[in-house]
Amino acid sequence: MWQLFQFPLCPFSRKVRLLLGEKSVGYELVRESPWLRRDEFIDLNPAGQTPVMADPTSGILLIDSTAICEYFEETIDKAALINGTAVNRAEIRRLVAWFDTQFYGDVVAPLMYERMEKRLVHRMTPDAKILREAMKRAIAHLDYVDFLLDHRNWIGGATLSLADLAAAAHISVADYLGGIDWKGHEQTRRWYAGLKSRPSFRPMLAERMEVIAPPKHYDKLDEF
Amino acid sequence: MWQLFQFPLCPFSRKVRLLLGEKSVGYELVRESPWLRRDEFIDLNPAGQTPVMADPTSGILLIDSTAICEYFEETIDKAALINGTAVNRAEIRRLVAWFDTQFYGDVVAPLMYERMEKRLVHRMTPDAKILREAMKRAIAHLDYVDFLLDHRNWIGGATLSLADLAAAAHISVADYLGGIDWKGHEQTRRWYAGLKSRPSFRPMLAERMEVIAPPKHYDKLDEF
Repeated sequence: MWQLFQFPLCPFSRKVRLLLGEKSVGYELVRESPWLRRDEFIDLNPAGQTPVMADPTSGILLIDSTAICEYFEETIDKAALINGTAVNRAEIRRLVAWFDTQFYGDVVAPLMYERMEKRLVHRMTPDAKILREAMKRAIAHLDYVDFLLDHRNWIGGATLSLADLAAAAHISVADYLGGIDWKGHEQTRRWYAGLKSRPSFRPMLAERMEVIAPPKHYDKLDEF
Repeated sequence: MWQLFQFPLCPFSRKVRLLLGEKSVGYELVRESPWLRRDEFIDLNPAGQTPVMADPTSGILLIDSTAICEYFEETIDKAALINGTAVNRAEIRRLVAWFDTQFYGDVVAPLMYERMEKRLVHRMTPDAKILREAMKRAIAHLDYVDFLLDHRNWIGGATLSLADLAAAAHISVADYLGGIDWKGHEQTRRWYAGLKSRPSFRPMLAERMEVIAPPKHYDKLDEF
């Protein structure tokens, strides 16, 4: 069985898990804390980042969330998630990159550093100014998601795609860390409530990161 | 004809140009300086980053270097660059992500900020300490490329792939900015000399970024 090296708040691992869930690929979770830079993990992935997937039976090792998602999209027919024409697929990949780079850099990375890494690793308190800035940027990003959903059923186009999973993965980590203000984002809320209720999503909502509790609404399907 | 919005030292645009060159896809260069945040460009790409490709005839707009490369890989049969089995393809994509994220973040981004953006935008002198740190990290990265080339003919496997083009794109920008110390990296030098002599690469070596001159060896095929 596949092993997935990850930690509960890794947004890139969440994206992979959502894809594996939609495609009904079985896997076992292996807890990895990349900030510890464990020698055996660096040997596996010199970049030192989660997610990594390993299949001990075949010896296959998959590294990097984009490479992992493309691999399962190519090898598992069920639930095509980078779907449609070449132009549709380019739009899905653009939006995956948007969440993996822009949303992550503007919102998720500063929240994770201030609320998680500072606490777990450096034993410091978060910088309120940086948190406020990240939350302000999150609002601008949700405005963009609202805009996309005004024109489309799903974030990447007419059907559920990897763009939705990437967006939900990053938003869910930001939401866990108290960085999302849901007021005024009706479209995005409705879309996110739909995603939260999917069988691929629900197990993740039940998991907790040590020492950090999410806000009360985090795992509720109809609260924000 | 395709238009490619880019500037001469954008490593992500260089990766796309190398791929288009290998596949013999014609395009016209449109100079874009993303740091100016031109309104018309932000309308085109809300992420505000190069490369962007537009085809005025069909109205197709492609954004993000990964999405662009995958698009042409899917639509142009000539010169498969994400090739081989699903596992080979995952390894190629891992290495593309390695150069686009790790090498870029460790080496290219600080060099570009210190040597290009500070000069062009902020009229400041570069920070020597940050430059030294980036150059030291570049050495560790070239050690890794040496290691890969000890085991393979090309960076991603047995044949030329997008991993080589991504690596060459980022290394060439770092080399232009004086950040690469070629001493002791015999394997990587030989590989890079081979890439430099390809018709897809040579036009880029002749281009210059205003106010910043590359070191003398930069566009020579046999000097380092």
